[in-house]
Amino acid sequence: MRVEQVRGGVVEAWHDVHVAVVDGAGALVAGTGDPELVTFWRSAAKPFQALPLVEDGVVERFGLTTEELALVCASHSSEPGQVARVRDLLAKIGCAERDLLCGPHPPLSEPVAQEYAKHGVRLTAVYSNCSGKHAGMLALARHHDWPTQFYTRLEHPVQQRCLAEVSRWTAVPAGAIKTAVDGCGVVCFGLPLRNMALAYARLAIADFGLRIADSKEGSPIRNPQSAIVESMLRHPDLIAGSGRPCTEMMRAHPGRVIVKVGAEGVYCAVLPREGLGVALKVADGHGLAAALAMAAVLEELGLRPRPASLVARPNVNTRGETVGELRVNGGLAQ
Amino acid sequence: MRVEQVRGGVVEAWHDVHVAVVDGAGALVAGTGDPELVTFWRSAAKPFQALPLVEDGVVERFGLTTEELALVCASHSSEPGQVARVRDLLAKIGCAERDLLCGPHPPLSEPVAQEYAKHGVRLTAVYSNCSGKHAGMLALARHHDWPTQFYTRLEHPVQQRCLAEVSRWTAVPAGAIKTAVDGCGVVCFGLPLRNMALAYARLAIADFGLRIADSKEGSPIRNPQSAIVESMLRHPDLIAGSGRPCTEMMRAHPGRVIVKVGAEGVYCAVLPREGLGVALKVADGHGLAAALAMAAVLEELGLRPRPASLVARPNVNTRGETVGELRVNGGLAQ
Repeated sequence: MRVEQVRGGVVEAWHDVHVAVVDGAGALVAGTGDPELVTFWRSAAKPFQALPLVEDGVVERFGLTTEELALVCASHSSEPGQVARVRDLLAKIGCAERDLLCGPHPPLSEPVAQEYAKHGVRLTAVYSNCSGKHAGMLALARHHDWPTQFYTRLEHPVQQRCLAEVSRWTAVPAGAIKTAVDGCGVVCFGLPLRNMALAYARLAIADFGLRIADSKEGSPIRNPQSAIVESMLRHPDLIAGSGRPCTEMMRAHPGRVIVKVGAEGVYCAVLPREGLGVALKVADGHGLAAALAMAAVLEELGLRPRPASLVARPNVNTRGETVGELRVNGGLAQ
Repeated sequence: MRVEQVRGGVVEAWHDVHVAVVDGAGALVAGTGDPELVTFWRSAAKPFQALPLVEDGVVERFGLTTEELALVCASHSSEPGQVARVRDLLAKIGCAERDLLCGPHPPLSEPVAQEYAKHGVRLTAVYSNCSGKHAGMLALARHHDWPTQFYTRLEHPVQQRCLAEVSRWTAVPAGAIKTAVDGCGVVCFGLPLRNMALAYARLAIADFGLRIADSKEGSPIRNPQSAIVESMLRHPDLIAGSGRPCTEMMRAHPGRVIVKVGAEGVYCAVLPREGLGVALKVADGHGLAAALAMAAVLEELGLRPRPASLVARPNVNTRGETVGELRVNGGLAQ
């Protein structure tokens, strides 16, 4: 599978895509390129970095809502509402913005970035797309009475807890997982695409009907992954943001799919009904190509149609002329 | 040859590079990947779109300087001095900014772009990195008494003249050259890397000691390519701009090399002393990877050392930590 930049009918550049589609038992049910490719999971690991909050009782202890749990799993757009919710979460756990160790950056959403630049908004750590994850890590530290300082470091119990969780879900021994520093400063995990897909497939073995803090029923959590799956499925608008691919793909098929982007061309998804996990990587790290590829893979797996914005992306030149497009060529080998 | 994005010692993403190194007789003296790869020449065709100005007498007719000719060949940074020179050129040929059909865009130089954004500079067509080329095309039209309207269209005599020139230097029949619309609206040319490299190698068969308008001697132009080669060699600061790779590579080896970027991962070069032309393409279009690859190829061809900024590029995260680097792996196969 390739994503091709076409100009005047000629392929001018292309992006190679590697894909693994795996079921809950770990069988490779479809793929293309090298499904065993080892790369960093980056932000697509967030649901598994969030799971300790459910498993260790952090969600119940602090009364976290599904919105807050969704933001812990999110690469959000720094929308005002998203930032406000992260601030609320920090207050709930007795932390402040200064405890966040993520670095600031312009919002991933171009319209939000332009709006903030126009109004001179000072971008602090809470505006990082990873601020929900960092707040979650602080919550985990608070709950276990671990230090909240230096929580980003590999040797800190928060990161060791996340590493163990990633190892358990991906079935890769912790010692075989490569580690490095992520864009936001925490540990990121290097492992085969196939194992990333397995972890997502295993999320699908969820017990729906979960009720957590924001529910009136308030029945106990039946299994940890249900809380993650339900939080993400309920709040596609918090997982990324308005106009961004994860949100668009989830909104196009409500309740049918969770899609999660990672940096450098990584995308993962779970189809709960089908019990399938998907992991893909654009070899050169092109983010838009990865989004188009994921939309094509999901369509091939039955989620028809793709959102119109993800079928192809026109290439518009400085004169406003459409001179080509970015589009997917090829599909999954069964 | 690959340019690799490394994080924590692990290759996280990579960019495949195709290279052709050709002598003036068209022999492939070195290469890697697919030297016959067909792609668009984009802005690396500019010296050949400028050649008709020398050949048809436009340079003598309007008294163009080497600075102006260098800007016709440039993808400039929209620096104030560069923009002013293009305005001078337009005045010299009796045209105005409104005759330029290139679309505006933020300057290719990040510091220049930030400076203009800070001061609210209104970016008009003359700020396009291609404004020198467009002014040259207007000069060609003026000289031949062709209409200055619609000079960007394939059927306009300006574009037909450029197509014929590209065909002659690349030894690809005009009918076999693929055409499309470039980022700035003019025609761009699709042909094999090997033929692009040939054209650059043939530039090297130049008769140095040329004197054109800005020279006191004012001796006649002995061959057309000399005017192009000398104009570009003399003014590395105008070919791109401060801090940009073409300028850095040319400044590192004064008089030894001309380097010219094209969009979507294309780079070309001529080594006049060695009589060699180089054309390379990063398959996925990554511009910085292409610059690092060109610096590595030139070093392998004897231009040692590479500018320090083009040996590798650190990957700095949002916390200001260096978490990896972009670097070249592999070299030319002889």
